[in-house]
Amino acid sequence: MIEFNNLTQFLDHGWSCINRGVADTKSPGRYPTLATVSKDLLPEARTVVLRKADRNTSILEIHTDTRTEKVNTLRQNPNASLHMWIPNRRLQIRISVIVKIQTGSTIKKRWEEVPQKSRVSYGTLPPSGSVIKEPLAYDQMPSMESFAVLECKIGKIELLHLGRNHTRAVYQASSDWAGTWLVP
Amino acid sequence: MIEFNNLTQFLDHGWSCINRGVADTKSPGRYPTLATVSKDLLPEARTVVLRKADRNTSILEIHTDTRTEKVNTLRQNPNASLHMWIPNRRLQIRISVIVKIQTGSTIKKRWEEVPQKSRVSYGTLPPSGSVIKEPLAYDQMPSMESFAVLECKIGKIELLHLGRNHTRAVYQASSDWAGTWLVP
Repeated sequence: MIEFNNLTQFLDHGWSCINRGVADTKSPGRYPTLATVSKDLLPEARTVVLRKADRNTSILEIHTDTRTEKVNTLRQNPNASLHMWIPNRRLQIRISVIVKIQTGSTIKKRWEEVPQKSRVSYGTLPPSGSVIKEPLAYDQMPSMESFAVLECKIGKIELLHLGRNHTRAVYQASSDWAGTWLVP
Repeated sequence: MIEFNNLTQFLDHGWSCINRGVADTKSPGRYPTLATVSKDLLPEARTVVLRKADRNTSILEIHTDTRTEKVNTLRQNPNASLHMWIPNRRLQIRISVIVKIQTGSTIKKRWEEVPQKSRVSYGTLPPSGSVIKEPLAYDQMPSMESFAVLECKIGKIELLHLGRNHTRAVYQASSDWAGTWLVP
């Protein structure tokens, strides 16, 4: 028995897990790992929250503070990778993206949609990553100026299913998501 | 109330989650995301299995096939990052490492300890990542020649706890793991 033997159905399954991550705050797809490359060519990885996903435009959306390490890094090198492991599906999803950092008036509407109690995430003082003497020696000063939307344009999706058999496939925007099987 | 206000206790807590990952196959710490930087300076991330952890030597151990993308990448750039998100602890652990790829006779003893049924992971033909026409068009030919141990020497550990308050700290080998608080 093989669970996935059709490239299109396999990709549909991957997208259903991505969409579930947006819709369901309990889903593991909600909290992908965003990997980037620092100025010093070191890999960096951190958990982010997936806010939107649009298969038609191939764009995933993440919200962050403008003064975080990830924004500084992405200004230098916009290439990033989003990684999900969905335990109950035994599915790994690896998504290669190019990130556009949106700030200011173009995202005013998105800022207005952020619930008041969530806004504290955008605008710590001193900025995120600063050295402090005590663990709580910082203030939260929410402001739209500190709010950034990371628009992640997908170039490639790779799926690995660890089922009874292992199956793996890669899909690229450049070949209109046709996909090819790979050795796991 | 603040859950962590002592740097040493916070690091001890992080290590207990790392050690739990080795001991308990159900623990999320068992399956960190390994991020690397490709030859083309693109970030890559994939799930790996944490096999050993030694706080005294600051070494974490991962097993892989010698012909995987991650080994090719690490031969060029041995810098990597291991990322864990422990949901029930609300703890993110980010570990910066330098990876030494061990193969051949020096790891003979480790190979002998790998259970027979687990050995199929080391030695697919064609090699992992090859394009194939059908999803199962590969064989598993376990062999010690395909087995590699990634010895990950820790240079830095960063912890982020999303509790009632958020606390974050970074610890470096170069300052003997003394640690400093950071703005989350």
